[in-house]
Amino acid sequence: MVKLIALYKTPENIEQFDEHYFGHHTEITKKIPGLRKMEVTKIVGSPMGKSEYHILCEMYYDDHDALKAAMKSDEGKASGKDLMSFAADLVTLMIGEEINE
Amino acid sequence: MVKLIALYKTPENIEQFDEHYFGHHTEITKKIPGLRKMEVTKIVGSPMGKSEYHILCEMYYDDHDALKAAMKSDEGKASGKDLMSFAADLVTLMIGEEINE
Repeated sequence: MVKLIALYKTPENIEQFDEHYFGHHTEITKKIPGLRKMEVTKIVGSPMGKSEYHILCEMYYDDHDALKAAMKSDEGKASGKDLMSFAADLVTLMIGEEINE
Repeated sequence: MVKLIALYKTPENIEQFDEHYFGHHTEITKKIPGLRKMEVTKIVGSPMGKSEYHILCEMYYDDHDALKAAMKSDEGKASGKDLMSFAADLVTLMIGEEINE
């Protein structure tokens, strides 16, 4: 499968971020057509202690065409617009392909 | 579940990196006791085009105690030592907790 990956740095105001992220952003993102699975991971540290990151979100699609169509859909655009409104300076987006080991 | 996440920046020599990563590093990492699942994602770009990242690897454990024990095991130490030998300046390690959305 193909994944859209969003990695968020720790925000200044975690409580406010989480309220928007879990209360609003994930809800509109879940509505994107073609989304097969969304896996959210809360980063709690690193083997060395702290981490500068807060959340890793992985959104699974059947293939690259499905992901492209998703990003062009009204729901995808709404999610992207919302993302830029609260996390433009915190998020790194990546597109990945699962490798079966 | 709890995850150890390794995010690798794109190396200068991708072929040489992949040869070591897939031919050796993942093989010794798979032997770590308590590892439930390893998911490797090849980063191929971003919605904006390029990405500075190359691979995202997620290693799943039952809980934080299992992950701690894994990192202290001989196999875990061997994997960590190998990691530092070829990717010390490329890898970011994170510990995360899966959130059921």
